[in-house]
Amino acid sequence: MEKIDYLSRIDSLRHCMETAGVSAFIVPSADPHQSEYPADRWKSRAWISGFTGSAGTAVITLSTGGVWTDSRYFLQAAEELQASGLQLFKEGLPDTPSMTEWIACTLPAGATVAIDGTTCSFAEGERWKAFFTAKGLHFKTDFTPFEEIWKDRPAVPADAAFVYPVKYSGRSFSEKWEDVRKAIAERGAKGILICALDELAWLLNIRGNDVEYNPVVVGFAYFSTTRRVLFLDKGKITADLATYLQENEIEQQPYEAVDTFLQGLSADERVFVDPVRANYRLTELLVQQQNAVLGLSPITWLKSIKNKTEMEGRRAAMVRDGAAMVQFLYWLDTHIGKEEITEIGIAEKLREFRGRQPLYKGESFGTIAGYREHGAIVHYSASLESNSRLSPKGFLLVDSGAQYLDGTTDITRTIVLGPLTEEERRDYTLVLKGHIGIATAIFPEGTRGDQIDVLARRHLWNVFRNYLHGTGHGVGHFLNVHEGPQNIRLEQNNTPLVPGMVTSNEPGVYLAGRYGIRTENLTLVVEAGESEFGHFYRFETLTLCPIDKRAIDKNLLTSEEVAWLDAYHRMVYDRVSPLLDETHKAWLRNATAPL
Amino acid sequence: MEKIDYLSRIDSLRHCMETAGVSAFIVPSADPHQSEYPADRWKSRAWISGFTGSAGTAVITLSTGGVWTDSRYFLQAAEELQASGLQLFKEGLPDTPSMTEWIACTLPAGATVAIDGTTCSFAEGERWKAFFTAKGLHFKTDFTPFEEIWKDRPAVPADAAFVYPVKYSGRSFSEKWEDVRKAIAERGAKGILICALDELAWLLNIRGNDVEYNPVVVGFAYFSTTRRVLFLDKGKITADLATYLQENEIEQQPYEAVDTFLQGLSADERVFVDPVRANYRLTELLVQQQNAVLGLSPITWLKSIKNKTEMEGRRAAMVRDGAAMVQFLYWLDTHIGKEEITEIGIAEKLREFRGRQPLYKGESFGTIAGYREHGAIVHYSASLESNSRLSPKGFLLVDSGAQYLDGTTDITRTIVLGPLTEEERRDYTLVLKGHIGIATAIFPEGTRGDQIDVLARRHLWNVFRNYLHGTGHGVGHFLNVHEGPQNIRLEQNNTPLVPGMVTSNEPGVYLAGRYGIRTENLTLVVEAGESEFGHFYRFETLTLCPIDKRAIDKNLLTSEEVAWLDAYHRMVYDRVSPLLDETHKAWLRNATAPL
Repeated sequence: MEKIDYLSRIDSLRHCMETAGVSAFIVPSADPHQSEYPADRWKSRAWISGFTGSAGTAVITLSTGGVWTDSRYFLQAAEELQASGLQLFKEGLPDTPSMTEWIACTLPAGATVAIDGTTCSFAEGERWKAFFTAKGLHFKTDFTPFEEIWKDRPAVPADAAFVYPVKYSGRSFSEKWEDVRKAIAERGAKGILICALDELAWLLNIRGNDVEYNPVVVGFAYFSTTRRVLFLDKGKITADLATYLQENEIEQQPYEAVDTFLQGLSADERVFVDPVRANYRLTELLVQQQNAVLGLSPITWLKSIKNKTEMEGRRAAMVRDGAAMVQFLYWLDTHIGKEEITEIGIAEKLREFRGRQPLYKGESFGTIAGYREHGAIVHYSASLESNSRLSPKGFLLVDSGAQYLDGTTDITRTIVLGPLTEEERRDYTLVLKGHIGIATAIFPEGTRGDQIDVLARRHLWNVFRNYLHGTGHGVGHFLNVHEGPQNIRLEQNNTPLVPGMVTSNEPGVYLAGRYGIRTENLTLVVEAGESEFGHFYRFETLTLCPIDKRAIDKNLLTSEEVAWLDAYHRMVYDRVSPLLDETHKAWLRNATAPL
Repeated sequence: MEKIDYLSRIDSLRHCMETAGVSAFIVPSADPHQSEYPADRWKSRAWISGFTGSAGTAVITLSTGGVWTDSRYFLQAAEELQASGLQLFKEGLPDTPSMTEWIACTLPAGATVAIDGTTCSFAEGERWKAFFTAKGLHFKTDFTPFEEIWKDRPAVPADAAFVYPVKYSGRSFSEKWEDVRKAIAERGAKGILICALDELAWLLNIRGNDVEYNPVVVGFAYFSTTRRVLFLDKGKITADLATYLQENEIEQQPYEAVDTFLQGLSADERVFVDPVRANYRLTELLVQQQNAVLGLSPITWLKSIKNKTEMEGRRAAMVRDGAAMVQFLYWLDTHIGKEEITEIGIAEKLREFRGRQPLYKGESFGTIAGYREHGAIVHYSASLESNSRLSPKGFLLVDSGAQYLDGTTDITRTIVLGPLTEEERRDYTLVLKGHIGIATAIFPEGTRGDQIDVLARRHLWNVFRNYLHGTGHGVGHFLNVHEGPQNIRLEQNNTPLVPGMVTSNEPGVYLAGRYGIRTENLTLVVEAGESEFGHFYRFETLTLCPIDKRAIDKNLLTSEEVAWLDAYHRMVYDRVSPLLDETHKAWLRNATAPL
């Protein structure tokens, strides 16, 4: 592998900075669509710093620079930053200055901090602007040096997009647009600017292959009561898609034309735009032109409430995903200790089994397979160096998921490879009790995820343990595996849980250097009943895969908890076994037998 | 009783309004200190409308008017408003317009809405101002017609104030002031304006009898690094208090002098003021003079964290309050069905038993004694008309509390007077399970009340029941029975629960027209343990009084819940029995015997 000369990249950047009068340049991870996984074209932070983790921000000044990232990347970043010589700032440690504070301390008064306004949201950019202005610094948001210095920069992804049929999406574009139109009309807006790729894909019923794990298409859209424009490179438009766009009266313009188009809006055109989901440059343009109506995107909310077709699709996808998981678990059970199996091999096997299932389109995120102490690293990704060999003892934590045409899956199982300690069994059982606490919860209309999060944690808290990630995130429909607006977390979130929302249920516990445990199923909010106190909801568990009984300390479970597990396992067997051969059926019968 | 001529009162008010060019006048319940219980002088909403409930806002226009109040007062308000002819607006019903919307619809554009700026907080006034301004109305905040038309208006309370000794308060004024001084210095302020009466009483270690149930003194204070001024009528200052003020270098000025004093502040004096706890007029004055530093009052937070002396005092007060409660419960148990007992009689008996206890200074709020269906009215107050006679069947809900020099109490017991239905027993047990859920919770540092509220509700939710009040409120120390900033509620609250906070634990359930159940103890947040996951806290239950076992369906309790109840009852017996005679001891032994 050729050694990359980061120092000369930084030199050429500094040259641009000097020319433009910029003293510090902020390089976030984001693309112009605020995506969780950006396409290669927008991996500019990695290009300039060498650090390739999924989260982190680089700052380059004329003489120094650094990268801020969180604990899951401390080791990786320290290694990767050697080539660029940038300093690693470990976020979350008490002595680490925040990125903005560090800049304010490093730069002299009157200096200019810059960013490419397409790489942060409007909300974020405004916060930074207010902070730097208060510190006597200038904040420039139209600095785009990579266009000049990144010579072999990858192009905007050019893969073909395709129509996502109503058979899977449940509602046509025009039905969805009618809902969006009404929602923005209530806010006095005639049009809406869509920047987020999953919102674009959902509303238009189109999908693509532009971003790893997320079946989205890179583009923008401006839809109003009088005009529908999709900013998408022509190369992505197949004959089918062209017909579809024509049928829906959607005109196509080049991806880059969105700026010019927005500049040409008439002064009285009121345009809805979400300052958290739209990039700084386009939002600022609409704000300056006094076109902008700022607010939470109605699409985020509409998209989170799955329709009947989506619910049925997801249930069907879960049966196939469950069959693939059972094949995987059977294979692991019968091969562990007999042949060499590594963490990387686990991810390959999962792809193999899932790949045999109809409608499979790929992984929904990079598999996390962490053996023993690696299981305690929450976002562990096995590298060639770290790749552990599995032995027949302890826990293997496997968090994986798939994109099927009829639904997205995300499942974590902590698998018993051999003997466990008492403490491991206890912690596994306490995590399971928390999982069942969410799975069996009944709650009134209006309940938010932050109100019920404790049901997943209380048994761990009783023994002074905890986990520092959320209990649940929303999951898209053949779309992003992480979506809002709802979640189940310690942090406050105003969004209520309403019927149709798909949310993960994934408590865990992590003992650094020892072991990690997590049990995750996806759930669907459904009606539970009604009384003089109003409507009550509950979670239907969607994921179908046995939970490893070998790690359970039955003495710690209540009879209600045992009953839930037995009923869940009965359902898993009933739904998944028809897809299995006799060998796998027999294995599953045993794995799902009553506790 | 002489009939009050509300119509002529309203006429004279309208005359003032016409003279001042005011088209609508808002009359809230508040006094200039935003008190929960205002003194008679400030009951202007009742004086003009006839409605005497604790919560409600009157609006008088030149031709019409109304009163907005919540469901607990619908019946009472309908009756009381007959004399004034004002319309009742039932808050919380879908068709009821909000007070501000109604005004905006009723008045023509350009008209003036007015308020007496001492009767609302700055935060509230600013919200109204923004709303009315957006609707094209003027908002006037210095309209004070009652000074002219309320001829026999009661004076500012003139009772003597007294020094609250360090023996009970635990910390001297100067120690407390040092904490406050530091907190406001961090915000760049040199002085602080104190409007809330409980904040004034806490910081100065003074108490009084100016307000029913709250042992506070009506006054303002302005304290800075260079000057300490107490605005308090001279008549309230005893010789002892005068010496105390002198020792602490606190000068006295008349109550009314606060405005003039603030107007005389030098331009560079930065003054901390809490826009939620200070009235509109004084805050606006500081804002206009550019003296104001707005923020959450540091006293609210400091006051909520009880020191060792306060904790020990509260524990001691609980023993005496428990003894009085046992005497009451014994009396009820041995007299029910044998003589006439009414709801009003219950409140009298409680005062009698508590009044015999050392350090008793009065009730901490009006006793709620609701028999059967009256128990379902959450803030029920028996009137001569409603006053039920108790029979030996069903539930009696009694919520009461006392002010002792060494602590404030607040307890609810639902008492079994005779046979119950299966449903009553089930609901009672589910409420108890919720109570135990909070009482036994262990939670990490940083946990907020809204995160654990579900532990009190989940058993009720499972059977589609709920209660529409909070699970817990803060309780002052020989101060207001309701204080912030922490609570345990469904609604979001950013305040974490930290060691030293006293909070009630009071789940309930209310079936309109049938019965109400609530079980309330006060709790203290204490350290529970520490691990690699940080500090963990738990609640110590402070209240000492048996929970009626006769209503419990033991089959619905887990063995852990039974163990908690038995241990709680053992503690109640051990601590309270030394204060009882043999007859009461024997009764308590039985009432606290293991389930």
